Amino acid sequence: MSTISLTLEEIERLSREVLSANGCDQLNTDALVRTIVTAERDGSDSHGLFRLPGYIASLRSGKVNGGARSRISNDLPAVIKVDGDNGYAPAAIEAGMPVLATAAKSLGIAVMTITNSYHFAALWPEVEALAGEGLIGLACVTTKPFVTPAGGAEALFGTNPLAFAWPRPGKMPMVIDMATAAMAHGEIQLAAREGELVPPGTGLDENGAATTDPGEIIKGVLLPFGGYKGSAIALMVELLAAGAVGDCFSFESVAADNGDGGPTIGGEFMLAMAPELVAGPDWADHCETFFQRYDAIEGPRLPGLRRHANRQSTAPRQINAELVGRIQDLRR
Amino acid sequence: MSTISLTLEEIERLSREVLSANGCDQLNTDALVRTIVTAERDGSDSHGLFRLPGYIASLRSGKVNGGARSRISNDLPAVIKVDGDNGYAPAAIEAGMPVLATAAKSLGIAVMTITNSYHFAALWPEVEALAGEGLIGLACVTTKPFVTPAGGAEALFGTNPLAFAWPRPGKMPMVIDMATAAMAHGEIQLAAREGELVPPGTGLDENGAATTDPGEIIKGVLLPFGGYKGSAIALMVELLAAGAVGDCFSFESVAADNGDGGPTIGGEFMLAMAPELVAGPDWADHCETFFQRYDAIEGPRLPGLRRHANRQSTAPRQINAELVGRIQDLRR
Repeated sequence: MSTISLTLEEIERLSREVLSANGCDQLNTDALVRTIVTAERDGSDSHGLFRLPGYIASLRSGKVNGGARSRISNDLPAVIKVDGDNGYAPAAIEAGMPVLATAAKSLGIAVMTITNSYHFAALWPEVEALAGEGLIGLACVTTKPFVTPAGGAEALFGTNPLAFAWPRPGKMPMVIDMATAAMAHGEIQLAAREGELVPPGTGLDENGAATTDPGEIIKGVLLPFGGYKGSAIALMVELLAAGAVGDCFSFESVAADNGDGGPTIGGEFMLAMAPELVAGPDWADHCETFFQRYDAIEGPRLPGLRRHANRQSTAPRQINAELVGRIQDLRR
Repeated sequence: MSTISLTLEEIERLSREVLSANGCDQLNTDALVRTIVTAERDGSDSHGLFRLPGYIASLRSGKVNGGARSRISNDLPAVIKVDGDNGYAPAAIEAGMPVLATAAKSLGIAVMTITNSYHFAALWPEVEALAGEGLIGLACVTTKPFVTPAGGAEALFGTNPLAFAWPRPGKMPMVIDMATAAMAHGEIQLAAREGELVPPGTGLDENGAATTDPGEIIKGVLLPFGGYKGSAIALMVELLAAGAVGDCFSFESVAADNGDGGPTIGGEFMLAMAPELVAGPDWADHCETFFQRYDAIEGPRLPGLRRHANRQSTAPRQINAELVGRIQDLRR
C-alpha cells in the first residue's frame, strides 16, 4: 500500500477544508474534524479519513443536514433525548454529553437517546468522554444490515458496535469498543482494498457458504462474533440502539437510505452511571485491586491500550495515498 | 444416566422439606423453592435441584444466613441498594424487584445493586420478571474465578452470566441468559458427571493446554466465549457486577469463601428501563416489525424459546436419580 505522511495538523486542515467546501457549517465541521483527527491520532484507521468521502457524498446528495442544530428534551431528569436534526452524530453527541453527564452525576444513572442522526465513526470517543467525567459509560448504535443472526444466512443486524468505558481516577480509563460482527465493516472494506484474506468465521458469501474473501463477504453477509452468544449480544445492541431509542433498526436504516455511500440515518443509545453514587465511595480503590490482578496475568492486555499508546505518538500518520488524493479532489 | 420422574409439585415438596430441615426459614425457603421449581420447569437443569446440595452445604456450614432479611436503601430515587443480609439472592431479588420496577416506571431508568448475598441460580428469572412489568431488564453477577481473560491461562473472571429481557406486550418476552464463559460452570460439571467431552475452545487444562475433557478443565481454566470480544464482555460484567455494585470481584468471592461447595458471596447488578418513557409510545409496534423480520429468517430462533417451550409441559421432569437420592438424604 502506498502511503503519504500527514501530521495530525495536516489531517485536521484537510478534513476541515473538504467539509467546509461541501457545505458543512462551522459547528458541524468542528465536531466532525475532532472525530476524524482523534480516530487517526489513536490508529482507528477505519474511522478517520477513510470515512471522509462518505461524509462528503452524503452532503453532496443532500441527505445529511450540514447545518444541523440538535434539540435536547429532558422532561424526565434521567432521560435525555437528543434530536439530531438530520445531521452527523458528533455534533449531537457533543450537545447532549454535558446534559447526560450532569444528570448521571446527580441522579446516579441516566440514559441518552440520539435520534435522526448519522453516525459514521468509532464509539469509543463518547464513552471515553464519559469516563473522563468520572462516569461509567456505555454506548451502542445500529448500522446497515450486514450481519446474519447465528444459524442463518440473511443480513438483519448491523455490525452493531458496543462501547463501554470504566473510569480509573489518575489513569487512562479502560475502554472497550467492539463490533458485535466477527469483523467491523470498515475492517472488511480495508481488507478488500488491500487484497487480504480474513479469518474463517468472519462471513458467508452470497450463497450462504463460508469464505475468507472479504470481497465475497461484502456481497454476502457477515457473521456475529462468538456464535450464538455473540449473536445474542448483537440482538441486544439492535434492540437498545433502535428499539429503546425509537429510531431505525438496521433494516429500516438502509431502506430509508439513498445509497450515496455515506452513513445511514439512525439512533444511538448511551448510558452513564456515577460509580460513587451506585457502588459507594471506595469504588475506585476496590476496582484497582481487580485491574492489578488483570495486569499480573501473562498474555492478556486491557482493551483500549493500543489506542492509548498510539495517542502518545507525535509522528505523522501514514495514510493511504489513493485515499488522500481522492479527498483532495473533493475540495472542489 | 439413571433418572427419576418427579412432577413440579414433587420437586417443590422435596426442595421445601430439605431446606426447612436444614434451618432455612419460611421466607427464604419460599424464594429458593420458587427459583428451583422455575428452573426445573423451564429445563434449566444446571440451576434447579442440581444446586440444592450446595444450598444445604452452605446452610450446614453456617456460611449463609437462612433467616436473612434484606434491607433496602433508596436515597437516590433511581438507585436502589439491597443489602442481602448474607442470605440467598432470591429473597433479596424478590424484596428489591418491586422497588426497582416502580422506580423505572416513573423515572424511565433505574439501577439496583444487591450486596452481601449468595446467588446460585439462573439469571433469566429476574429479567423476565422485569419484562413481565413491561420493562427492559438487564442483570449480571460474578461467580468464582473460573475463566481466564483471552490470551492468558489464569482464572480471573467468573463465568459471569449476563441476562437481558425485552418486553413484548401480549407475547412472551425475548430473554437472553448467557454465561460469558465458553460454557457455564454448571454445564461443565454436568458434562463431567455424565462423562461427556466438551467442544474445543471451552477451556484449558492445569498446564494451560487446550482440552475437551471437562474434568481437566475443572482443574484448569475455562475460556471466555468468542475470543477477545467475549473476554471484553466478561470484563464488562465483572466490572458492573462487582465494581459498580461495590461487592466482591470473582477473585475476592472465592478468597472470602469457606469452601463448603455452596455459592460464594457477592453482588448483583440490575438495570430496568421503561421503553415508553425512553423510546416513546410506539415502541412496541416498532419492535414487532423487527421481531417479524428475525422470525422470517430460516435457521435462527430467538433466545429463550426453548425455556418457554419447556414451560408448557405439565409432564414430570426427569431428574438424575443419584442427585435425588443425595437430596433425600439431606432431609435429616
